[in-house]
This record gives sequence, structure tokens and C-alpha cells, in this order.
Amino acid sequence: MPIPAPAQDALAALLGARFSTSVADRDLHGQSETFHTAPPPDAVAWPVSTDEVSKTLAICHAHGVPVIGWGTGTSLEGHALATHGGLVVDLMKMDRVLEVRAEDMQASIQPGVTREALNTELRATGLFFPVDPGANASLGGMAATRASGTTAVRYGTMRDNVLALEVVLADGTVIRTGTRAAKSSAGYDLTGLFVGSEGTLGIITELTLRLHGQPEEVASAVCGFPTLDQAVECVTATIQSGIPMARIEFVDGEAARAFNQYAGTHLHEGPHLMVEFHGSPATVKDDAERFGELAADFGGTGFDWATTPEDRAALWRMRHGAYRACLALRPGATAVVTDVCVPMSHLPAAVAAAAADIKASGLVGPMVGHVGDGNFHSQLLIMPGNAEELAAAKGIATRMAERALAVGGTITGEHGVGVGKRPLMRAQHGAAIGVMAAIKAALDPTGIMNPGKMLPDMN
Amino acid sequence: MPIPAPAQDALAALLGARFSTSVADRDLHGQSETFHTAPPPDAVAWPVSTDEVSKTLAICHAHGVPVIGWGTGTSLEGHALATHGGLVVDLMKMDRVLEVRAEDMQASIQPGVTREALNTELRATGLFFPVDPGANASLGGMAATRASGTTAVRYGTMRDNVLALEVVLADGTVIRTGTRAAKSSAGYDLTGLFVGSEGTLGIITELTLRLHGQPEEVASAVCGFPTLDQAVECVTATIQSGIPMARIEFVDGEAARAFNQYAGTHLHEGPHLMVEFHGSPATVKDDAERFGELAADFGGTGFDWATTPEDRAALWRMRHGAYRACLALRPGATAVVTDVCVPMSHLPAAVAAAAADIKASGLVGPMVGHVGDGNFHSQLLIMPGNAEELAAAKGIATRMAERALAVGGTITGEHGVGVGKRPLMRAQHGAAIGVMAAIKAALDPTGIMNPGKMLPDMN
Ligand SMILES: Cc1cc2nc3c(=O)[nH]c(=O)nc-3n(C[C@H](O)[C@H](O)[C@H](O)COP(=O)(O)OP(=O)(O)OC[C@H]3O[C@@H](n4cnc5c(N)ncnc54)[C@H](O)[C@@H]3O)c2cc1C
Ligand SMILES: Cc1cc2nc3c(=O)[nH]c(=O)nc-3n(C[C@H](O)[C@H](O)[C@H](O)COP(=O)(O)OP(=O)(O)OC[C@H]3O[C@@H](n4cnc5c(N)ncnc54)[C@H](O)[C@@H]3O)c2cc1C
Repeated sequence: MPIPAPAQDALAALLGARFSTSVADRDLHGQSETFHTAPPPDAVAWPVSTDEVSKTLAICHAHGVPVIGWGTGTSLEGHALATHGGLVVDLMKMDRVLEVRAEDMQASIQPGVTREALNTELRATGLFFPVDPGANASLGGMAATRASGTTAVRYGTMRDNVLALEVVLADGTVIRTGTRAAKSSAGYDLTGLFVGSEGTLGIITELTLRLHGQPEEVASAVCGFPTLDQAVECVTATIQSGIPMARIEFVDGEAARAFNQYAGTHLHEGPHLMVEFHGSPATVKDDAERFGELAADFGGTGFDWATTPEDRAALWRMRHGAYRACLALRPGATAVVTDVCVPMSHLPAAVAAAAADIKASGLVGPMVGHVGDGNFHSQLLIMPGNAEELAAAKGIATRMAERALAVGGTITGEHGVGVGKRPLMRAQHGAAIGVMAAIKAALDPTGIMNPGKMLPDMN
Repeated sequence: MPIPAPAQDALAALLGARFSTSVADRDLHGQSETFHTAPPPDAVAWPVSTDEVSKTLAICHAHGVPVIGWGTGTSLEGHALATHGGLVVDLMKMDRVLEVRAEDMQASIQPGVTREALNTELRATGLFFPVDPGANASLGGMAATRASGTTAVRYGTMRDNVLALEVVLADGTVIRTGTRAAKSSAGYDLTGLFVGSEGTLGIITELTLRLHGQPEEVASAVCGFPTLDQAVECVTATIQSGIPMARIEFVDGEAARAFNQYAGTHLHEGPHLMVEFHGSPATVKDDAERFGELAADFGGTGFDWATTPEDRAALWRMRHGAYRACLALRPGATAVVTDVCVPMSHLPAAVAAAAADIKASGLVGPMVGHVGDGNFHSQLLIMPGNAEELAAAKGIATRMAERALAVGGTITGEHGVGVGKRPLMRAQHGAAIGVMAAIKAALDPTGIMNPGKMLPDMN
């Protein structure tokens, strides 16, 4: 159902040229990074203030128009696709850092600030915002997907680093959740409820974030392992030993091959770990030595230390470029990207089983992972339109998720549910799905907020 | 309204002697640690399994009987009082540690396990559960109040250390929230929603907790300061400097006097900080030295190091005994205990204003605080039945909360809302109270779960 004319008129009156039904604007907001597709939304809005978001939602609420929040569109499970039509609300014009309170290690920002923009702004303060999903995503989108990434093993995820939110509810009501205090026992944790809600409960219009001190000393390295098992077992042993890793990333042989082809690196084309240590010069040295000894126990060799900031930047640029590098392994391909997360002791078996499954399928499917959290991904390359490959890739993703559930893990550690993981939500949550549905119905009774996402259809 | 006879019959048939309407049992479950009072509940149940909790709640749901969860009854804002009558469900017979998964640093336990019992059970594993509210509370109660305490500055609160829950909802439905993975982006954070919900949404029947490695080295000390301002400013400087404190506790002159009288210590009767460092021998030494230098800058003197485990135990026993020691300052008194939490940079002014207010009132009101989180308490001693003193104490507590809100803090950092902080909930949450009420109505439509607590009456 297209947006009713009175709603279009009201939105145009409110937003002027920042409301568009042009094909070009709609198409730009109908894209997805992965194989998920849907028709473009019926219209796009670019509010510049909370008040405009509130009025926009009130109009949509009155007319039953679906509302889909949009940050940088980098989510991987089709989260921001307009599967039920409606209005995409693009938050990228709300991109101001409102206040940095260095003395409290906090920043208040608008949702369209990207993580790189925030860290650029923070550079001179000695502080930084650690959550790093690789993509230069919006902080609003990162909160909405409960994103994490390479540094979560040390600094936590968006769950841990969002202190407070301003949210516009489905009917336009503006609420504030959380406080600027380090902790609170005053009522239900609404901040935690909206973080990870994928735009299904409201639009985030402001975030108060926890910042961290820039580490005095940083050391990064990459090292190779003879087998996938040894690399992953080294991770489990490292985490169990309590070494406070700042990053510990797994990269399999296929991904290493992708880096070599795409980024001109010269990695041996087998499994690697990419690690980083943060601390004082003394603790970094100590931690790095302890890790080095453990790695050696598991056959780790060829330690390549990135000692200058430039070398480190290059190392993590390579890691962050993994998605594009891996796509380039098969020109023209798109990807089924899937992530699961398991308890640490189950990681080696989970990664090994996924690797075997991918191998058996004949698909090219590099694996990488934020393995310090027990979290890993596979990126299954398929040709657009090839139904057989799509089915094979989806089968692999589903089995990864099912194996994760069987050991008490989760169907998604960080990418979120979107469209792709919806069919698995009941398997993970059982009767608790009813609680999620009750909350959704209570806060969004007409179901306009990002319909068709996250929660399975109830009935 | 007493419990209807058919409900009593059904509960007696289900629980046998573990259902009681005796005056003694009801009185035992009608007590509160602080000045809050209410008539005893109409009955008490001691279920021994999730299934019994489920059937108990189904019966109460069918008959509209209020259900109040009960752990060790140590909450400070009248949380567990049967203000609307009904059935207290005492969880203390569900006290088994179900599984310790040392390799994943996790334990699954029943809600009636106390924090000391858990740590005794963990001793041999090299792991421990850090959250420490002083009282030997039940883990179910600690989760329900989102408790924290002395170590939260380093290890986080119950919010950070509960990975998963089993919860029985108002109608008896059993759900599981969370997973055993370190993180998850699969749907709404229901674990976070139930942690801190004070028994108003369901009864927690199982918890999966994050454990931590016992620190290789521990050092504790107490040191005195010339003025309250200097002590608190030292805290702010310490936290801002990034020294990873394991504990940093403020104790004012009145509290020091209470320790001396009650525990036979010989503290100078002025403000003190009690600190603890966890780490390797090298980092503990380094951290302690850095703190020592900072403390000296603020006039800190008389460092008394507790070097043996016995000395350390004595030090923290003294701190944990603060409540009773302070009560003993005024024989026969009861207390209005209040806690607030503010952003770190506002801590010195907040503590100073509270101290001035208490002084002006003429009440004896020692202050202590988990100041590394910006969290502090006052314990206002009043005579039972003295309405004037009660009004004065409540006035001080309200002004502490209002000043906390004025600087972006919270009306309670860790004790929770219960009965005592209800009147302040609207001031803190504004329109977000409507969201909390909607969630409450969605999950507990007949309002049987701990009625009269946390949320203000809606209408
Ligand atoms: C190459 C690559 C690597 C990646 N690596 C990681 C990784 O390591 N870890 C990780 O966690 N993720 C990763 N991702 C996924 C992605 O970066 C995250 O999901 C990110 O959080 C999405 O942010 P965004 O601004 O792009 O949001 P979008 O994709 O625009 O939106 C994501 C969802 O949030 C909603 N939304 C957006 N803004 C708001 C708002 N203000 N209020 C309410 N809802 C909103 C949308 O409706 C949608 O449901 C990766 C993606 C790519 C392309
Ligand atoms: C001397 C002293 C010092 C204290 N210091 C601190 C401190 O430093 N930090 C701090 O955070 N707290 C502190 N407290 C408060 C108290 O210890 C905490 O509130 C504790 O978490 C309560 O646990 P409990 O088992 O006694 O719960 P109870 O008092 O029995 O119950 C508390 C609330 O939780 C509900 N509840 C209990 N069990 C369950 C369950 N299984 N499922 C659902 N709901 C349930 C009850 O209905 C009630 O609303 C202190 C208390 C005392 C007496």
C-alpha cells in the first residue's frame, strides 16, 4: 500500500525538500549490503531534529505508514529494507556531536554521527569510543543492532557502552532512557531494551555514550597457525588464561588469500590470528609475551608486529576490508553473511564444524571472527539469481545457528536478526518470543515500526 | 483482601507444609531492614522447583492473589513488603548451584543461592563472583534489585554479570532469556529487562552468571583525609586517571566513629577511603603507588595496608558491617537509608551538599559510598514513631535525589525503588514512565506481581 496522499502532503509540508518520493532517493534507500533484496521504500525523509522525527512519526502513525530507520545502511541481515513499503527515515542529517564531557568520559551525540567522525572529534581529548564494527556505521544504527566488532572482547558491545538514549516512539512521543550516572537501579532498563531493537520499537534521536581512555601503549600483530583447530584452540586458551586482549581476530585461509589478492599482502594462505594489546608499556609487553608463549604452544609462527601507528592502521584496514576483499574472490558474487556466537569452550568445535560444512558445499565461504567473544562469521559467496547456491548457503547458515543453539549459544552475536535470522528466533527463544511480541504490541500497537523484521509473525 | 479459600486449598495441595498461613511465618516475611513497614503477607510459600513456582503463580493469577518474591529480605526500600497483602514466595529453598562451567567462566544457579555460598563453592575453581552488596543476599534478590556494591567499579553490577535467566511470568509461563554466549544481538534484551524489575514482572528461578578469575594479587588499604571534600575529590581524580580500582569506598567521619565504637577500630574520626587493587604483583604495586601519590596530593595520610588475607577480611567485614555499626550510634533507632548516583565530576558537590543538609537537620546520618561509581548513601537515624524525624529524613533523601537528577544522575544507583523511591520515579523518567507501565501491563495484566512497588500508580 503506497503512502496515502494526506500523509504525503503532511510530510512534505513538514520537511519540504527533505521529504522525497523520487526514484533515485528511494533506490538509494532500497539497497542492502548482502543478498537480501526488497522493493525500494515509498518515500524517504531526512529530519534534522528530534521534533521533526516526532512529527514525522505522528503523521505515519495516524496514517498507518511503515517507518524504517536508516543510518548508513550497512547492516547485514536486510534490517533496513522496506519489506512492507513505507517511509525510510534517514537520520544522517542529525550528525552533531552535542557535547563531550571528558571529565565524565561521556559524549552525547545525534544518531547520524558515524564512529569514525566521533573518534576524530575525540582525538584531542585523550578519549575514544571503542565499539568498532569495521564499517563506518552510524552510532544510531550501531545501537539499533547492538553492534560490537573487534574490540568488544575488551571494551564490550553497544549494550555496555550506551548509557542513555532519547527515543521517539511510534506515535511521536519523545522519551529519555537511562542517565549520566555510571549505574542506576531506578526502574526497568529501557536503554537496554532499545539497544538492539532494530528500529522496531522507536527511532533513536540521541545517544549518551561511555568513552574510554586512549591506551598509553598499543601493540598489534598477526601470526599464522598450521591448522584452523590450532588457531582457534589458541584463542580459547588465551581467553581462559585471562590475558586482557584488546583484539583477537581469527582469519581463515580463504580470507588470507582474499587479503593477498585484494590488498597485496603476503600472508601465508592459512589460518591467522590478528591481535592487539592496550595498556601501559609494561603491561603491553607482559601481555604480548604471555600471548606469544601461548601461541607458540599451538604452533603459532611468523609473528609480524605492527609497531608504528601507520602499520597498525594498515593492519586493521586490511581486517576491516575483509568483506570487500572476500567478495572479490568471486567477481560478480553477492554474499550470505552469517554470524553466530558460542561459549568459549565450544568455539573450536563450532568453527571446525562450520568449516567442514562449507567445504562439503563446494561454495567459497571465507570465515573470520571476533573469536575472543566466541563470535565468528562466514561469508558465503553466491551468484545473484542462482537459487541452488542461495539454498546451499542458507543451509550452511542455518546449521551454524542450530549448532550454536545446541551448545547454549546464539543465532547472532552481533549482526542482528533483520529479515535473515527471523526464521530462527523461535528456536532460540521459545516461549520468550511471546514476551517480545507483547512488548512490541504494547509500544507499537499499530505495527508501523520496521514491520517484518526481527520478530517472527505471531499466530 | 485475604487469599480466597480455593486458592489457599490449591496452594496447600501443591506445596503441603511448604505453604503456611501461620502468624510466625507471616511475621518473618513482613519485616524490612529499614523504617518501611507494612502488615505481614497473608501467606508464605516455599517452592523447591521451577515447576512449583509456575503452578503457584498460575493459582495466584487465577485468583488475583498478589505475589511477592522473597530472597533474604535485605532490600532497603521496602521492596519485599506485602503492601497489598497476598502471598510471599520465598525462594530460599531453591538454593542449589546447578553447574559451574569453569572453562566458560560461568555458573548456573537457583535464585536462593547467596553470594557467600556461591563464592565458597567456587573457591577451588580459581574463579569468583564479584558483585558484593555487603549483605549476604540471594542472587535472585540481587538480580531483582540490580544490586551492585563495593566491586562494581571494577567488575560491574548485576546488569553486567547476569548472562541468562529462567523466569516464571505472572500466569505461570516459564521463559528463558539470554544465552551462554558472551554477547547476542538476537532480539530484545529480556535478561536486562528482568534484572532490576524487583519482582514486578516475574519470579526468577534460575540465573546464569559471569564469573571472573580470582586475582593473583590483592592489596587493600584505608587512608584518612583532612576534609570530606579532599577525600571525594581524590576519588574523582583517581577514576579520571584511569587507575583500575577494584574497590574505592568512601566513609565519612560519623561512619568512622561508628566503626570505632562498634568494631573496636582506631580510625581517626574523619573521612576515609578504603581501597583495593587486583592484578598481578607488578600491576598491583604500580596501581597502589599511583593511587598513593594521588591521595597524598589531596592530603591523604595514615595509609594502613591490609597485607594478609585475614587483615583484608577484617577490613571489609568492618565496611560491610557499616549498616549495623551506624545503627548502633543511636540505640533503638531505625534508619532511612538512601542512595543516589551522579556523574563522577559532580560527586564532590553532591556529597558536600548532602553532608551540609544532614548537618543542618541535626539528625545523625553517617555517609558511605561506592564512590568509584559516583554512588553514595546516607543512613539517617530516626526513632521509630517520631513523625518529625521521619519527615526530616525523607526530606533529606528527596533533596539528595533531586540534586542527583539536576546533574543527570539517578535517584538510586543500586538499592532500587521499592516503596521508598516510587514518588520520585516520574521526576526521573518523565514520559518514559508510560513505557514502563505499558510493559508492566503487557506482562502482568492483572497486576499481581509485587503490586505497589517501583512504578507510580498510573491514571
Ligand atoms: C563490511 C562490513 C563489516 C561489518 N562488520 C560488523 C562487525 O564486525 N560487527 C557488527 O556488529 N556489525 C558489523 N557489520 C554490520 C553493520 O555495520 C552494523 O549492523 C551497523 O550497526 C549498522 O549501522 P548502520 O548505521 O549502517 O545501520 P543501518 O544498516 O542503516 O540500520 C540498521 C538497523 O537499525 C535501524 N536503525 C538505524 N538507525 C536507527 C535509529 N537512529 N533509530 C532506530 N533504528 C535505527 C534500521 O532500521 C535497521 O533496522 C558490518 C557491516 C559491513 C558492511
Ligand atoms: C547492611 C546492608 C547493606 C547493603 N548494601 C548494599 C550495597 O552495597 N549494594 C546494593 O546494591 N544493595 C545493598 N543492600 C541491599 C540488598 O542487599 C540488596 O537489595 C539485595 O539485592 C537484596 O537481595 P535479597 O535476597 O535480600 O532480596 P529481597 O530483599 O528478599 O527482595 C528484594 C526484591 O527482589 C524481589 N525478589 C527477590 N527474589 C526474587 C526472585 N527470585 N525473583 C524475582 N524477584 C525477587 C523481591 O520481591 C523484592 O522486590 C544492602 C542491604 C543491607 C541490609
